[in-house]
Amino acid sequence: MARNTHVAADTSAPAITQILARFVANHPSRGWSDAVDHEAHRTFYNWLGCAIGAARHEAADAALAAVAMLQPAPQATVLGRKERVDMASAALVNGITSHTFDFDDTHLKTIIHPAGPVASAVLALAETRGSSGRDVLDALVLGIDVACRIGNTMYPDHYDRGWHITGSTGMLGAAAACARLLKLDEKKTQMALGIAASQPVGLREQFGTMTKPFHPGGAARAGLTSALLAMHGFTSSPRALEAPRGFVQVVSDKRAWNEVTDELGERFEISFNTYKPFACGIVIHPSIDACVQLREQGIRAEQVERIELRVHSLVLELTGKKEPQDGLQGKFSVYHGCAAGLLFGRAGEDEFEDAIVTRPDVVALRRKVQATVDDSIDEAAADVTAILTDGRRVHVRVDHAIGSLQRPLSDAQLDGKFTQLVEPVLGAERAKAIGQACWKLGTAPDVRALVKLCAA
Amino acid sequence: MARNTHVAADTSAPAITQILARFVANHPSRGWSDAVDHEAHRTFYNWLGCAIGAARHEAADAALAAVAMLQPAPQATVLGRKERVDMASAALVNGITSHTFDFDDTHLKTIIHPAGPVASAVLALAETRGSSGRDVLDALVLGIDVACRIGNTMYPDHYDRGWHITGSTGMLGAAAACARLLKLDEKKTQMALGIAASQPVGLREQFGTMTKPFHPGGAARAGLTSALLAMHGFTSSPRALEAPRGFVQVVSDKRAWNEVTDELGERFEISFNTYKPFACGIVIHPSIDACVQLREQGIRAEQVERIELRVHSLVLELTGKKEPQDGLQGKFSVYHGCAAGLLFGRAGEDEFEDAIVTRPDVVALRRKVQATVDDSIDEAAADVTAILTDGRRVHVRVDHAIGSLQRPLSDAQLDGKFTQLVEPVLGAERAKAIGQACWKLGTAPDVRALVKLCAA
Repeated sequence: MARNTHVAADTSAPAITQILARFVANHPSRGWSDAVDHEAHRTFYNWLGCAIGAARHEAADAALAAVAMLQPAPQATVLGRKERVDMASAALVNGITSHTFDFDDTHLKTIIHPAGPVASAVLALAETRGSSGRDVLDALVLGIDVACRIGNTMYPDHYDRGWHITGSTGMLGAAAACARLLKLDEKKTQMALGIAASQPVGLREQFGTMTKPFHPGGAARAGLTSALLAMHGFTSSPRALEAPRGFVQVVSDKRAWNEVTDELGERFEISFNTYKPFACGIVIHPSIDACVQLREQGIRAEQVERIELRVHSLVLELTGKKEPQDGLQGKFSVYHGCAAGLLFGRAGEDEFEDAIVTRPDVVALRRKVQATVDDSIDEAAADVTAILTDGRRVHVRVDHAIGSLQRPLSDAQLDGKFTQLVEPVLGAERAKAIGQACWKLGTAPDVRALVKLCAA
Repeated sequence: MARNTHVAADTSAPAITQILARFVANHPSRGWSDAVDHEAHRTFYNWLGCAIGAARHEAADAALAAVAMLQPAPQATVLGRKERVDMASAALVNGITSHTFDFDDTHLKTIIHPAGPVASAVLALAETRGSSGRDVLDALVLGIDVACRIGNTMYPDHYDRGWHITGSTGMLGAAAACARLLKLDEKKTQMALGIAASQPVGLREQFGTMTKPFHPGGAARAGLTSALLAMHGFTSSPRALEAPRGFVQVVSDKRAWNEVTDELGERFEISFNTYKPFACGIVIHPSIDACVQLREQGIRAEQVERIELRVHSLVLELTGKKEPQDGLQGKFSVYHGCAAGLLFGRAGEDEFEDAIVTRPDVVALRRKVQATVDDSIDEAAADVTAILTDGRRVHVRVDHAIGSLQRPLSDAQLDGKFTQLVEPVLGAERAKAIGQACWKLGTAPDVRALVKLCAA
């Protein structure tokens, strides 16, 4: 039987399934600082805007058409739409839309997008049960802690192997969060984590297809249904996460168990969550940011002779598309990103529409961007010089882009992003009302009032 | 970015996602020999008996209680019960029950239990649509071919790493089978396989818990919903199976692509499916078989002084429990297996009930079994000598146990197994009627007539 050629099994792992279950079941409500609780509000708010914003995307249409074949009961809201579906399907579809624009939150240490799986599962369950906003936030913080700590345990090996880590840890976060919301005891929470451990969702090969956003949705559905199974006595291995043939060892050669236990209940991974200001991969953000800053200094496209951009080689490796032909390609073009930043002062989903990416003035400006590789510049930085027609040179250096941990989006900037995403779907009045409700989520007696505002 | 320490990515893999999709979408109905088609009937029949037989198990109760929280539409039958649920949940629950007794079919080359994921998905979908028996059998043969060929591609490395291969290939088989039943074209079938590729279900750590049978159920649900998504235009990578960050390379270091393409459409993996005569791990079967043969030679327990059993070391490693305390432990005791074989002439689920495992005459007889390791004996063989109180020695050598490819269960023996499983749940008359319908499945105009007989 000794055919295994992989790294040696670790038979002395700590009992992390039990440790996490005990933590999730027993940690006090709001047992963290005001800063952590505020970050939970911001995470929820950002996630909700992304989900509503993509509600009319063809991925949502296709997913809902498939769900309709199951004739679902109208338990929970599909955000930004009029359909109501069973809570597992709502978790699936809202998880899909929240990641469709690639505009959701990022836990930078693991590049997990934690809210997609966790919040999508929690809100669908909370709406069905009429839970309080406090209970939702507690579940969100704890669920995200579970997903990101397991991510820390395995990253980068797990991701390098080809797993889309958002969905392959998200089912654990969703299971933990739903177990908390259902008030399962430690033992049943442990079973829920175990059932979810058998259901990782996500391959990096799917990037560029609808199955990428399916990953957080599928993870949300898997986690929610795992909690429901555990609630009714379904059993799993109490060592499903750490055993030699358990989840972590099967999908990762890195097994830094201390990442689960270090400062558990004192440090919360949601503290390190970030929100994108631009609707594209993070590697372009410093370049866009620099061009937005040029615009803020009064520089206009018609004044520009050329833009000299110096970036790390990774930036061009991932986003070096010189002549993007449509919106999706635009997301992989640092040239388009720079043009959008300077022309519009922003790069939301609208600035990655086909019509914008192919607009003559946009095309003309991006052709003026000359990129040079300079590996002395950090991956998270960009160095931009605008050479103007009058000969002036204007230099902007961005060491940490807006939206990074060092320069987080302000609450007002989150409001702006939310509005930009939600207004086209639900109108200005509704967008404003939902925003106000989100900032007060911690005191809401029943989340159904908020959710009702999110239906079309 | 070159942090990957795993075996090198294979960038020249053949386009197996497309190849399998084309095969599944285009292979002619009943495009195989009578022998293959007969094996498909046997596979379906054996699977149905296992699923009905375990219908009242507590795993089914727990799963159905969880499903009930989604208020499912009454689209499809839970086999052996009165509940009707949506087709995805029916696929889940029937997949669970079909594997609950560990009594289902085995593709020995990969130890995949292929019918659980595939038949559970197909029948739920077929009932909802009123499909013909012919269409069900076509989907079953093709779906099992996909799952087992992917299994051949990765086994044993994938299994050794800790994946429960039944559920981690089964979602592909289920997706293929449902795509076929839905008559999806090649392109959409390819998308269905791709969506399913992101959702493997199953860790070996779960053995001994309800999450083990959850794996084929979860895979059935994942495959069915993947096909529904693809039907409505949901997209995935067209190289989801073979790309460097696609399914096979992410979960296995063995990538024998020729296992997908060799004799595709000529050799069918369902030909190599086997059915267990005994409700326990295959490694004990030769020993039980030998003791059944002793009984058939007229030997009775009271005549036995002792039984000398010689087996490969693996048999005692996996099933060496000398004093099992309950039914589940009994399944891991070659000693109990021998006692059951000699006392009852069979070892079905009934012979692994707690009351039997602890019955004084059973306990007394198994204590007379003396096992010796002899690695010159094959893992699939057993050498048994009964020493009788009158001094006689009776020797039985089993080189291939009943139920193996070399000594398959006859159709009549399958009838016996089916009856033993189904009668306690649905009664003798119904068991007989279902059996007759199963043997004629290929000519059934609408499977709903058969399924109706399977509801309690």
